[in-house]
Amino acid sequence: MTTQAQQIINLDKLKQYAAAKAVQLVESGMVIGFGHGSTAIHALHGIAQRFKEGSLRDIRGIPCSRHIQAEAERLGLPLVTFDDIESIDLTIDGADEVDTQLNVIKGGGGALLREKVVAQATAYEVIVVDDTKLSPQLGKRWPVPVEVVPFALRPVSAFITELGGRAQLRETSTGGALQTDQGNYVLDCHFGPIANPEGLALQLGEKAGVVEHGLFLDLTSEVIVAGAEGVRTLKRNARP
Amino acid sequence: MTTQAQQIINLDKLKQYAAAKAVQLVESGMVIGFGHGSTAIHALHGIAQRFKEGSLRDIRGIPCSRHIQAEAERLGLPLVTFDDIESIDLTIDGADEVDTQLNVIKGGGGALLREKVVAQATAYEVIVVDDTKLSPQLGKRWPVPVEVVPFALRPVSAFITELGGRAQLRETSTGGALQTDQGNYVLDCHFGPIANPEGLALQLGEKAGVVEHGLFLDLTSEVIVAGAEGVRTLKRNARP
Repeated sequence: MTTQAQQIINLDKLKQYAAAKAVQLVESGMVIGFGHGSTAIHALHGIAQRFKEGSLRDIRGIPCSRHIQAEAERLGLPLVTFDDIESIDLTIDGADEVDTQLNVIKGGGGALLREKVVAQATAYEVIVVDDTKLSPQLGKRWPVPVEVVPFALRPVSAFITELGGRAQLRETSTGGALQTDQGNYVLDCHFGPIANPEGLALQLGEKAGVVEHGLFLDLTSEVIVAGAEGVRTLKRNARP
Repeated sequence: MTTQAQQIINLDKLKQYAAAKAVQLVESGMVIGFGHGSTAIHALHGIAQRFKEGSLRDIRGIPCSRHIQAEAERLGLPLVTFDDIESIDLTIDGADEVDTQLNVIKGGGGALLREKVVAQATAYEVIVVDDTKLSPQLGKRWPVPVEVVPFALRPVSAFITELGGRAQLRETSTGGALQTDQGNYVLDCHFGPIANPEGLALQLGEKAGVVEHGLFLDLTSEVIVAGAEGVRTLKRNARP
């Protein structure tokens, strides 16, 4: 086995550890947000196992993407929509980059709009990551994904350039522009280290054609991080 | 003829007068935003007539809705998209409510997203209205339309209530939820007089699931108003 393949397997192990810790936070009777992405799906499997064993009862899930919805259905988990519920008790989701304030960049998986709708409706948002995602400053390691209506692709790209960023249209693995669950495009916007994430979020929020962006600020309650030395928990307003 | 029918005809005459005045601002060689709605369509017809007569040459238009695109095509006007152009010289569009600062509420016609994308890319935005649209304060006469992704209808409605508004799902004339050109819903949000439109715009911009809203602030260069006493022009930073 090559060293690179071994590293990928190790990283996936870390994701599993972090997800398993998050699954312990789930209680019977909860409405749960099911996040999208490679770490969140481990949590989904953990929840399904506890549900099957009977240690979790009367739970209802709300999925952050069509992909996760299909997987949750396959696992036999009870699903609801916002037509059925008012708020979400707990969401377990992944992230691409996490800063020391527990602000995160999300959207590497392309589901940032639903992930943010769910996060904003969630009482306790848990982010599960391996420790390669920790960062001293957002933007250092990851671009900010921006979901854009097709009609506005050019003006929004020009706007990102005006803001000092570089916008790159996300493509599928087979080439061609990736389409989100809503039929929009994703621009991966490379800003470098972001000095003022709140200001950038406001500017992106005011730009017509931007459906949503991957800066999730002041939304995280707890980050569960798995690294070589074990699993640790970072809470808001606590020293990491 | 009933008095009411007479009033509607008179109102349409006023819209025609305002639109005719705006059409005089169009020059050969311009890229023009074609607004959506009952007043803007009069302008479209006026532009088409000047184009046909030859007093306007080498113009290119960018439509704010599929409806206007079809009408412009029918009239034989040359159309472009944002793939072809970088910016727009002049846009002529309608509005539902215009305040003394020339801030406006738009979106009664359901095309607010494209209208705002076009307005933000426009060097000189002209709003044409009859004088029933003038208002001392936004929100006094008209709700703020908010375009929402279907997935987020409930959480966004709850958010409008939290902000002190009342959200009403817009329906088609035959019943059933109206769908925008992007396949989204429109919530007409009744706030009453809006003391701080900028603050409300920021709050709406930060809410996930809100694709766009009908507050168009600091975007209007000139308002052309037709009333019983004639047509007058209001310019930004000038006393109305």
